[in-house]
Order: sequence, then C-alpha cells, then structure tokens
Amino acid sequence: MQGPLTGIKVVDLTQIYNGPYATFLMAMAGAEVIKIEPPGGEHTRRRQRDGGGAHIPHAMLNSGKHFVVLDLKQEEGKAALTRLIEQSDVLVENYRPGVMARLGFSREHVKKLNPRLIYASSSGFGTTGPYRDYPAMDLAVQAMSGVLSVTGYPDNPPVKAGPAIADFNAGVHLYGAIATALLDRERTGTVRAVEVAMFEAIYPALASNLGLMGGINKDRSPRTGNRHGGLSISPYNVYECKDGHCAILANNEHQWHALARYFGQEWAITDSRYASMYERVKRIEEVDELVGGWAREQTKDQLFAGLIAVGVPCSPVRELSEVMRDEHLHARNALVEIEHPIYGAMTVPTSPLVFEGVPRDIRWPSRKLGEDQALIDQPERALGRSES
Amino acid sequence: MQGPLTGIKVVDLTQIYNGPYATFLMAMAGAEVIKIEPPGGEHTRRRQRDGGGAHIPHAMLNSGKHFVVLDLKQEEGKAALTRLIEQSDVLVENYRPGVMARLGFSREHVKKLNPRLIYASSSGFGTTGPYRDYPAMDLAVQAMSGVLSVTGYPDNPPVKAGPAIADFNAGVHLYGAIATALLDRERTGTVRAVEVAMFEAIYPALASNLGLMGGINKDRSPRTGNRHGGLSISPYNVYECKDGHCAILANNEHQWHALARYFGQEWAITDSRYASMYERVKRIEEVDELVGGWAREQTKDQLFAGLIAVGVPCSPVRELSEVMRDEHLHARNALVEIEHPIYGAMTVPTSPLVFEGVPRDIRWPSRKLGEDQALIDQPERALGRSES
Repeated sequence: MQGPLTGIKVVDLTQIYNGPYATFLMAMAGAEVIKIEPPGGEHTRRRQRDGGGAHIPHAMLNSGKHFVVLDLKQEEGKAALTRLIEQSDVLVENYRPGVMARLGFSREHVKKLNPRLIYASSSGFGTTGPYRDYPAMDLAVQAMSGVLSVTGYPDNPPVKAGPAIADFNAGVHLYGAIATALLDRERTGTVRAVEVAMFEAIYPALASNLGLMGGINKDRSPRTGNRHGGLSISPYNVYECKDGHCAILANNEHQWHALARYFGQEWAITDSRYASMYERVKRIEEVDELVGGWAREQTKDQLFAGLIAVGVPCSPVRELSEVMRDEHLHARNALVEIEHPIYGAMTVPTSPLVFEGVPRDIRWPSRKLGEDQALIDQPERALGRSES
Repeated sequence: MQGPLTGIKVVDLTQIYNGPYATFLMAMAGAEVIKIEPPGGEHTRRRQRDGGGAHIPHAMLNSGKHFVVLDLKQEEGKAALTRLIEQSDVLVENYRPGVMARLGFSREHVKKLNPRLIYASSSGFGTTGPYRDYPAMDLAVQAMSGVLSVTGYPDNPPVKAGPAIADFNAGVHLYGAIATALLDRERTGTVRAVEVAMFEAIYPALASNLGLMGGINKDRSPRTGNRHGGLSISPYNVYECKDGHCAILANNEHQWHALARYFGQEWAITDSRYASMYERVKRIEEVDELVGGWAREQTKDQLFAGLIAVGVPCSPVRELSEVMRDEHLHARNALVEIEHPIYGAMTVPTSPLVFEGVPRDIRWPSRKLGEDQALIDQPERALGRSES
C-alpha cells in the first residue's frame, strides 16, 4: 500500500481513544506507526478483562500499527524509546501534562535527541493554563464544556452525547495538527511541536447552541431535544411514526414546500403563518405538531424513501446493529469484514479520510501485545510487514 | 502572522458548518482563504434574518477569511472562479455530490484548469455509493449513523447529541485530509483529490457503544444516559449534588481508591463486591447508588475542587454562558474577546490546533458580504491584508 504518509515513522505513546485515533488515521494513510504499550497492555486492551467489551474499540482503532512493549520506568525501556525517537518523524502522546517529563522525555530533551521530530500532545486541558493538571476523560470534558447542558430534553436532567465525542474530536484535531506540522517542516524546514486540548476542540461544535443566545428563542431551554440546537430551523425534529422514529427537517423554502407537497398539505405552503423560516421558527411548536401529525400515519421506510425522493433530509433512527451492516458503508469500504487473529470475525472501519487512488482497507488487523517486539530487539530490521 | 499554512491559497466554496470549519482551521493556520458566497450571502449569514441568531456561528467560523460574492450561474461568476482556481492550491466544497459538475467545475474539469490543485469535498454520504444523492444535515446523519439510538436515558425516546457533531466532525476530518494531501504533493508531487462523508466520519466515535455489544452488559439498552457508552467503567456517571449536577468517574483502581478515601468510605476499597473494575461494572447500579449518596451531601464546587485535588476526574455540569467566560480558555487564548465590525462585542474561538511559536488569535473578524470583492475585480492585487 502506497499512501500519502508512506515513509513517515511514528512513535506512538497513546492510549484509550484520543491519541490512538490520531495514530489510527496516520497508519491508515500509510505511516509506519510503532505503538508502545506498557507491560500488560494499554487501557483498552486490558479493559476486555474488565467485562466491558472494549476489545472491540481496541481492534477498531489499532489496525495497521506495529505492537511493542516497553517499560518506560526501566532503563532498558528508556533506551529503546530513545533509539525509536532518533529514527522517527513524529512522537504522539496523550498522557496528562507532566508525565512525559517525569519519564525523562520532555519536549526539550526529545528536541535534543531528534531536532527534526514533531512532538505531538493531546490532553484534556492542554499543557498550560490553570486547569492543565486536571485529570480528564470524555464525560468530564463533556460536562465542563457545556455539551451536557445542551443535550437531551428540556424537561429532563442534562445528558451526555452518546459517542465519546470529546475524545475522538480531539484525536482528529491532533491528526490535523500533525499533518500540518509535517507539511510545514517539508515546505520551510520549521519544526513545531503541536498540541490539542479536548476541552478546546469541542467548543466550535457548539456554534448553533451558542447562537441560541442571540436568536429570537433565547429565553428557551438550551436543551432542545431533537430540535435544532439554535432553534433556528423549523421543521427540524425527530417525529414518531407507525413503527419507530424518523428525523425530518427542511432547511430552506424549497425543502419546506417539497415536504408539504409530499404529505398532500399544499395549503401550508401559502399559509402566512408558515410562509418563511422566521415565521416557522416563531411557531416552532405548531409546526412540530403539524409535521408530527403527518408523519404519524406512515412507516419509517415510507417516510425515508418518500421524503428523500423529493429532496427533503430524512432518516430513520437506526440501531448500531443496522449501521454496522449498512450497505452504503460496505459498498464504499468505509466498513470492512475481517477475520481478526484474536477476536474472530468482526466489522471494523477504515479511515474516513478518502484519498484519490488509495484503496480503503485496514492494512492489517491489530495484533497481540508485543507481537512486533523484534523491531526493538533487532533495530536494523525493516519496518512494514508485507501487507495482505 | 506567519503560520504553518502561510502562502497556501484556498478557494472556499463551502457553507454552513462542515466545509466552513475546515477552511476556518486553514485560515487560522495562515492560509489565504477566499470565501465565495452567492448573491445574498451563504446560509448562516442569511440565517440571522430568520431569527435564529446564526450570525454568531457565522462570526465564529469565518474569522481570517476573505469575502467575495460570485454568481456561479452566470458566465462572469464562472470566469472569476476559473481565474481563482488557476491561482490556488486547494479548492474546498461541501455541496451535495453533483452540484459542482452542474456548475461546470467537476473534478475532471478543475484538474485541467490546475493540475496541482487539491480538490477537497465533504458531503453527507460521499461521492459514490447508493446514498450519494441523499440530502443530509446534522440531525439526519446523527439518526442514520446511530448516534440518536445511543444518546439519552434508557427510558426516554432517542435524542441527538446537542452540538452539531456530524457537521463539525466531518469538517475537521476534511481539514486533516487536505493537510495530508498538501504534504503528499510537497513530498512526492502526487496530487490527490480528497473526500469525507459525515456519515462515515462519525462511526469511529461510536467505539464504546459498539463495544457494548461484546461486553457483559450487552443485553442492556444502548442508551446509557450518563453512564459510559460501553458500560465498561464504574463509577462513571453524572450525580446530583446539593446545587446541581457533577460528572464523576474512576477509570482505574487508583482513582477508585482516591474517590472512596475522599468521601471517607475506605471500607469500599477492600469490600470484595467493589474490589475490581469487573465487579463494579457487574454491580453498576449499586455503585451508582453508593457514589450518588456520597455526592449528594456536597456542592458542585466542593466536589470539583476536592476530587480533582486527589486525582479523580470530575466536572460540574456547566452552562454555555459559564464556558464562554472560562478563565482557562481565556488564559490560553482559546477564546478571545473581539469587537466585531458588524455584530459588536463578542467572544469567539481561535483554532484548537496549537502550533509552537504561532500566537493564537483570529487574524481578523469575519466581514461583510463582498467586502474583499477587489480580489476579483483586480486580480493582480496581493492577498493578505495587513493584520491587526
């Protein structure tokens, strides 16, 4: 496989989701990623033992990497890491700020070992500022950044976004920062360390919700259920139908007209109460009752097929088991079926980054702890096992 | 301002959140981004008129860009776009697949105009596959990808993540793909078009939730409220306290012991029912009742200060108005106060990508529709107004 990052060597000191997602994207783009795990394996590998089924995340995020074990508290481990740093282009870590320095691999020291290396860090709150030492995980960052206060129904307590968005969002930001730093090094010779804080990376995604503070509905609850986060689009909601729920929305007059016509409700197009987005947003409850009444008479499949056909954004609310088998994701090789050497048959994602001329595959499945230890013991051995 | 993308010229044909967030990250890294809006302005600029307060998102995402108006349905507009394409490094668009071709700017045609240009596209479902023509917006993609089915409380209907995560997550993936393609062009001379689909980009973030299918709790609802999405960590929840809600979690034995000790409940450390993550996950209700009882006696501020001090991840559930004034975000210049030329005093984010040696600022605030039209009328004019 020849990818856009082929030939880039990465020392990967990351764990759980944030850092490992960044290095997953690198590995999928062709980089040679050496994932260093502590004795016993990193958190998600061990979590399998805890009964949480986290071997699935571990397998999802660690395709196409090389696996070695180093005890960084021992001299031997430090010496091996030093050799890897000397040979690499990028070091990625998502320890809490200060841990790398305590291990003896501060930014300053690593710069001396390899002045061309990009030092990339991600953490909950960043390496400076009053919160830098706070421990962080996805839930705490979602609470801290206001995601909980804007998720869920107005009458219910705050609730988190189901996916680990604080972690993954930081991970892909970190990937973007690393690719940018590599480009800069290539274009100008400048070597810049990069960092991303989970807390900061999620803020822009709250744009609609922040917009609510400046709109005509600003006195309403910031938890808008399935309505638009800024209450600036109507209709825009999840409506109950005969056999489940369907998301339906109209982002402009064209879509609103198509929606009304689909349901045989042409009167609504000319009725002055609903004739503009401004009017519909003002009467958001009324509009939801109308559309809810129309949707109730149909099945998910009817609504989905019928509304999409007339250009109205619509989707059934789907379970993960349906998503995992989705024909579109499989047709595009966004998901692939593999026989995992440890976990057996499973479905795993390729990279969401699609590069013209580069096949979408996972290179190889994640491997056993220390399976590529020969890379340490025989440093002259070439990286990049033959790809199946 | 000298950033890692200084000198990179970008034709920006994007709208709403997905594409504009990608070009925002480019502008903040120093690229010269020319944002092309249709007569009347792009969606979020116009949405202000709709009463939704969306001028705040528009201001947040369009700092540091240049603003021109082109009617791409007219020959004059097409000719101006052609000239811009000939002079640029990247074209970014997030129209529905097919729209660029209908406007006369297909990938193939643009390649002829400028063989060195990176053609970057983002859409709901991608440019191939059975769903390619489906209209998409954040809510529909959240429903389609299963985000709704895993968000909210088990006893309530499915609900979306409050922030527009499908949009923004795709936008930052698109940024990563573009930076990678620019690096590839620089290193090898290869020019690759890139694309990202919102539907695909959100899948990896569901890792914990997908993991639930393989864990000891697999028969439970996929909507876990504020519990861990894979039900593989306990305690991990949002607990009611004297004056609000607090997120508290213990990701390992060390944190569990510190938590129990903080509440004066040393007995729980040695009690065999709670002595390992496996046992606690098995008794997840019992553990939540215990911790919930301990937390109820304290205030948000007490819990936050006390638990953070002993190394336990914890955060009060905060409102956006608190987040916007957060001392840490301001100390790090992740948020800055500006006097916006159209909207007045406001708080806007800088880029979450932090590059060593590059100050964090917004370069300049978003501008009026067509304010930089001279870039079209006098193409010889240099880009990059003096930065304040």
